[in-house]
Amino acid sequence: MSQLNFFLALSILTSAVAFAFAAYLYLWVKKQGTVNEKIIEVSALIKQGANTFMRREYKILGVFSAVVAVIIFLFLPSPIWKSAAISSNLGMALSYILGTVLSAIAGKIGIMVATLSNSRAAEAAQKGIKPAFLIGFRGGAVMGLLVVGCSLLGVATVLWLVGDASILLGFSFGASSLALFAKAGGGIFTKTADVSADITGKVELGIPEDDPRNPAVIADNVGDNVGDVAGMGADLFDSNVAAMASALVIAQSLTGTWANTAMVFCYGVLGLLASILGIATARLGKKGNPTKALNSSTYVTTGIFLVLTAAATAFFEGFSWRIWGASSVGLLVGVIIGLATDYFTDDSKPIVKKAAHASASGPAFTILSGVAYGFISALPAMVGIAVSALAAYKICEPMGAGYSLFGISMAAVGMLSIVGMIISNDAYGPIVDNSRGLAEMGELGEETIRIADELDSAGNTVKAVTKGFSIGAAGLTVISLLGAFMAEVNEAIKAAGGTELITGFDIMDPTVFFGVLIGAAIPAVFSAMLILGVDKNAQRMVSEIHRQFNSIVGLREGTAKPEYDKCIDIATTGALKELIPAGLMSIIATIIVGFIGGPSAVGGFLLGNIVSGLLLALFMSNSGGLWDNSKKYVEAGNEGGKGSEAHKAAVIGDTVGDPFKDTAGPSINTQITVVSLVASLLSTLFVAFSIFG
Amino acid sequence: MSQLNFFLALSILTSAVAFAFAAYLYLWVKKQGTVNEKIIEVSALIKQGANTFMRREYKILGVFSAVVAVIIFLFLPSPIWKSAAISSNLGMALSYILGTVLSAIAGKIGIMVATLSNSRAAEAAQKGIKPAFLIGFRGGAVMGLLVVGCSLLGVATVLWLVGDASILLGFSFGASSLALFAKAGGGIFTKTADVSADITGKVELGIPEDDPRNPAVIADNVGDNVGDVAGMGADLFDSNVAAMASALVIAQSLTGTWANTAMVFCYGVLGLLASILGIATARLGKKGNPTKALNSSTYVTTGIFLVLTAAATAFFEGFSWRIWGASSVGLLVGVIIGLATDYFTDDSKPIVKKAAHASASGPAFTILSGVAYGFISALPAMVGIAVSALAAYKICEPMGAGYSLFGISMAAVGMLSIVGMIISNDAYGPIVDNSRGLAEMGELGEETIRIADELDSAGNTVKAVTKGFSIGAAGLTVISLLGAFMAEVNEAIKAAGGTELITGFDIMDPTVFFGVLIGAAIPAVFSAMLILGVDKNAQRMVSEIHRQFNSIVGLREGTAKPEYDKCIDIATTGALKELIPAGLMSIIATIIVGFIGGPSAVGGFLLGNIVSGLLLALFMSNSGGLWDNSKKYVEAGNEGGKGSEAHKAAVIGDTVGDPFKDTAGPSINTQITVVSLVASLLSTLFVAFSIFG
Repeated sequence: MSQLNFFLALSILTSAVAFAFAAYLYLWVKKQGTVNEKIIEVSALIKQGANTFMRREYKILGVFSAVVAVIIFLFLPSPIWKSAAISSNLGMALSYILGTVLSAIAGKIGIMVATLSNSRAAEAAQKGIKPAFLIGFRGGAVMGLLVVGCSLLGVATVLWLVGDASILLGFSFGASSLALFAKAGGGIFTKTADVSADITGKVELGIPEDDPRNPAVIADNVGDNVGDVAGMGADLFDSNVAAMASALVIAQSLTGTWANTAMVFCYGVLGLLASILGIATARLGKKGNPTKALNSSTYVTTGIFLVLTAAATAFFEGFSWRIWGASSVGLLVGVIIGLATDYFTDDSKPIVKKAAHASASGPAFTILSGVAYGFISALPAMVGIAVSALAAYKICEPMGAGYSLFGISMAAVGMLSIVGMIISNDAYGPIVDNSRGLAEMGELGEETIRIADELDSAGNTVKAVTKGFSIGAAGLTVISLLGAFMAEVNEAIKAAGGTELITGFDIMDPTVFFGVLIGAAIPAVFSAMLILGVDKNAQRMVSEIHRQFNSIVGLREGTAKPEYDKCIDIATTGALKELIPAGLMSIIATIIVGFIGGPSAVGGFLLGNIVSGLLLALFMSNSGGLWDNSKKYVEAGNEGGKGSEAHKAAVIGDTVGDPFKDTAGPSINTQITVVSLVASLLSTLFVAFSIFG
Repeated sequence: MSQLNFFLALSILTSAVAFAFAAYLYLWVKKQGTVNEKIIEVSALIKQGANTFMRREYKILGVFSAVVAVIIFLFLPSPIWKSAAISSNLGMALSYILGTVLSAIAGKIGIMVATLSNSRAAEAAQKGIKPAFLIGFRGGAVMGLLVVGCSLLGVATVLWLVGDASILLGFSFGASSLALFAKAGGGIFTKTADVSADITGKVELGIPEDDPRNPAVIADNVGDNVGDVAGMGADLFDSNVAAMASALVIAQSLTGTWANTAMVFCYGVLGLLASILGIATARLGKKGNPTKALNSSTYVTTGIFLVLTAAATAFFEGFSWRIWGASSVGLLVGVIIGLATDYFTDDSKPIVKKAAHASASGPAFTILSGVAYGFISALPAMVGIAVSALAAYKICEPMGAGYSLFGISMAAVGMLSIVGMIISNDAYGPIVDNSRGLAEMGELGEETIRIADELDSAGNTVKAVTKGFSIGAAGLTVISLLGAFMAEVNEAIKAAGGTELITGFDIMDPTVFFGVLIGAAIPAVFSAMLILGVDKNAQRMVSEIHRQFNSIVGLREGTAKPEYDKCIDIATTGALKELIPAGLMSIIATIIVGFIGGPSAVGGFLLGNIVSGLLLALFMSNSGGLWDNSKKYVEAGNEGGKGSEAHKAAVIGDTVGDPFKDTAGPSINTQITVVSLVASLLSTLFVAFSIFG
């Protein structure tokens, strides 16, 4: 017990260190300063727009969370009128609220520093690539440190206060609720703005990207921040919390030592320390290749983590080398999945070139080749997740009953251990993307724009790796969530006085099979609703842009300013309006399946959901990424270059890919986690009431 | 025993009746005659081209089958050096060969009558829609009757001769091998020709569809026959045989009465009789709506089947009403899935109109809306399959152990009972599609072309329904194949002297989960390989067309004839070349997973394969269908009509949809069946040798 308390205290302390380091980086970025008035003005507009979105989002989310918190208090973990200890209901509700609040804080501060860094990186690019890179990277790192710090702090605090890991499912559900809003809502926001700006600007009016006359241009830049910075941060906060929570639930169900629980925290602490070291030492090398700098910091962090955890395993009594093995397998497979994703989306590799070449035959071939390679790209990641789950299981099997599942959850924890580094790299992308826009709007000159372009391109390439990583981690996490669901069901059965515990979900059982088929359809429908949501919302924004060009005198000539806020309003309101039905659909489907088929059907439902969700997420993220980079490849002068037929076709591919890779694809993770947690939370009800269960 | 023999004899007799009726229809069609010389000439070219493809295909297939037959003889059901009865190895090998031969005969004759009907229907259209409809329909019906007759004959004969249902898996595998070549190979052929003809003709040269100057035009017409007539026939032959075979394997594993086995044949017989009645009574109503005529013949057949099977259940002792209920649920759900598919792909319904409207904003929106609605369209079918499986199981559960699985297999048999009718309707499509082309090439005048167009459009609409039906049936069939796999594994365990039988596949078992994830990726990779195959092959054909236009003097002016056979050669060779790696990939993946994880991993693999296969098949078939019809809707004068921007965008959607709906989507069924049968056949080996099994 004292050993565990030591690690809980250490977790909270390490979070504090991370916050302190984040504060240092924040102040460092802030110190860099800006002088260009235009940049300051536009940057302020972006900041203000991002705040508008966040305020609205948090307001709706506040109402939503309050309602959910009351429901949790009344029903979970067991109906309050049946519950012996009202305190667990209260604990669960409060833990839920804490999950949303911590994630929201991380997102809010992350956006703040991102909108601060973009202008500074743009101006620094005048002095060269090195200082600009460092500002972009450190701005992103603040987000990375905050997310991991908050998740470690939250999980440790909740466990310290209540001692029961299943209450953490409430915390995790809070993180998921926020991620659903931030990632899927932000995804709709960002693509609404992006698509509308492109259609009206580049296509209809013939003005360049990032031209300040376009009323959607600020919304587009805001979108990078709310979708890619805040959304991605909330997504990985969610995955990280879910991985730790499910590992802890399983650890507590194991008989024997407290060391298992302690190990989860120890790995969290060491992952955070490794990320801090990786961030602190990241520099642009002599040759000044930003992609290499970002990737090598990932490898450095990975290496440090493996060494530190090995040392901890050797040092602490009760820590098992088998668990270390499972976690290392998870981390290494994560890196391999990232590299495989890179192979399919990097424009220096053959696949993107092939897709670009297909564009020369027309847009239909751009789409067909992107779809085909996107399908194929799912294979390495699926195999990677499958192999790591099997390996982790087999490594830990000799430790005794239940340990094999714990091994899988520790593989997920391992894969997510360097999440601080991953988020830093990922948030770097939208920051330098914004910088590029600001450099153009601030008229900083060709050389500066070229440097900003180079930084931006590195962001795109690295994004592919981090996205593959986060989907892989989500894949492993949800396996352990499936285990956590089973554990919860058995708790519920015991609590109801039953003795026939569930030992698994047999696919030959038709209620399980029933669940599998329906569960598999849900991510497809969810994705479709988000894609159609972007489409509908973009139509609204395009009409608004047309209205402004028709009614604001001098806008076309650049003598009058557009009403940027109207576009931001539309993107915000529409995003939240389109998101809610998609989220509710997934939750309601889970509940219907549960009340028809009981826990077995829900187990099947979760499996179907995970499997088709992973497949579709990989397909959409990767095909979107490869279309984007294949357009860039053509724009770099290949296959006829800008303005050629191949370019037109590649642009169409990129437009299709936008909602694939930035809205639907990455939101599926969150959908899976939300559904898994809803299932775990409602397990008591499914055990008590179901038609065929 | 005598009761079973009665039904076996009845099956063979009914097959004979079906063959006789088919012969009558064939002679009736032949009697109609043709006079237009140009039509006779072109029709002969199409026939010749189709024969070229079939000859090549059957030649390669002959070699392939011979090799597989030898392998089967050596290893299956158990290695020949260990086998007590060499006769079962011989029986399995011969039954495999019979499966390929019967399917090949049905395909061959079907093509023969289809290429006979197309010219006759074209000329009859000069006299009006009624006679033309009847020729098209009856030509298709010959295929329908042959397929069902051959499958019933084959299954009954094999069981009569050997008495052991598991030998039927060999027969079923033979049917699957042929279906893989016919459906996937034919699918690559038809889309290679279609895409190449469109790109060079409509886009580059500005000549109309079906213009005889285009060297690819005959290949395009041949493709309709080899892909849609022979391919689709082989596909449904395969599903039908697989459904009966797995129902019979499960029936024999049930303790008790022979009536279960008898029921499978009884339902087959009554389904065939119902189809014969439906075909014989099909006429174009007074209002002359061909879609209505086709659909109402489906409903008539459904009704007759339900009444006849109810009567049989009341009459024969040992026939259970519960099994009748399961089978009826299957059939009704099949109809419902068909209607749902129709909702998403019929251009008089809102979805197609929405996709057409999206095209007005550009091709990216055509693609995005088609993908989104395609995703959503998978839901009703997935829910339908899930509900019918659960209902069939629950209906038959009270009958005792094993009956619930038998109920599911009988739901599949029920859904496929009217397959004779389904194939008739489906084969009608390519026949009248060809007629339209012939009417244009034979210059039969505008009114005739209009009638041919109307008949063609009905073919497209009905195709959607039959496709939904066949995917639904495949979904249920593969569930019973999963059951058959488990039965085979347990036989193998017993034969090896083991006592620990497999009772199911638990998704919490990581070897099962490992299989699920990899199995789910396979249909995506398989589809991608077929799509890329079409793409590569089309590039070859486009070069050939360019060569002909550049080197044949007078071709452009219409004074010289193109070398049609060169294009047919390319389509043929390429199709088979591109198909084989995709088929091998699926089979090898199954074997690798089996040798790594043993039977449990294979069970998971099959589940993952089924689930993601169904999802992708529904998505691709339906989105392809809706793009096709949305193009037709725009061409009918909506959203700006022909030549508008919306039309250009819709054409791009249609081109993307072509390999989706005619190559990859419908081939996934076959891939799933092949993989399931390979798994069942190799179960002995997986039990004996595997790393983690």
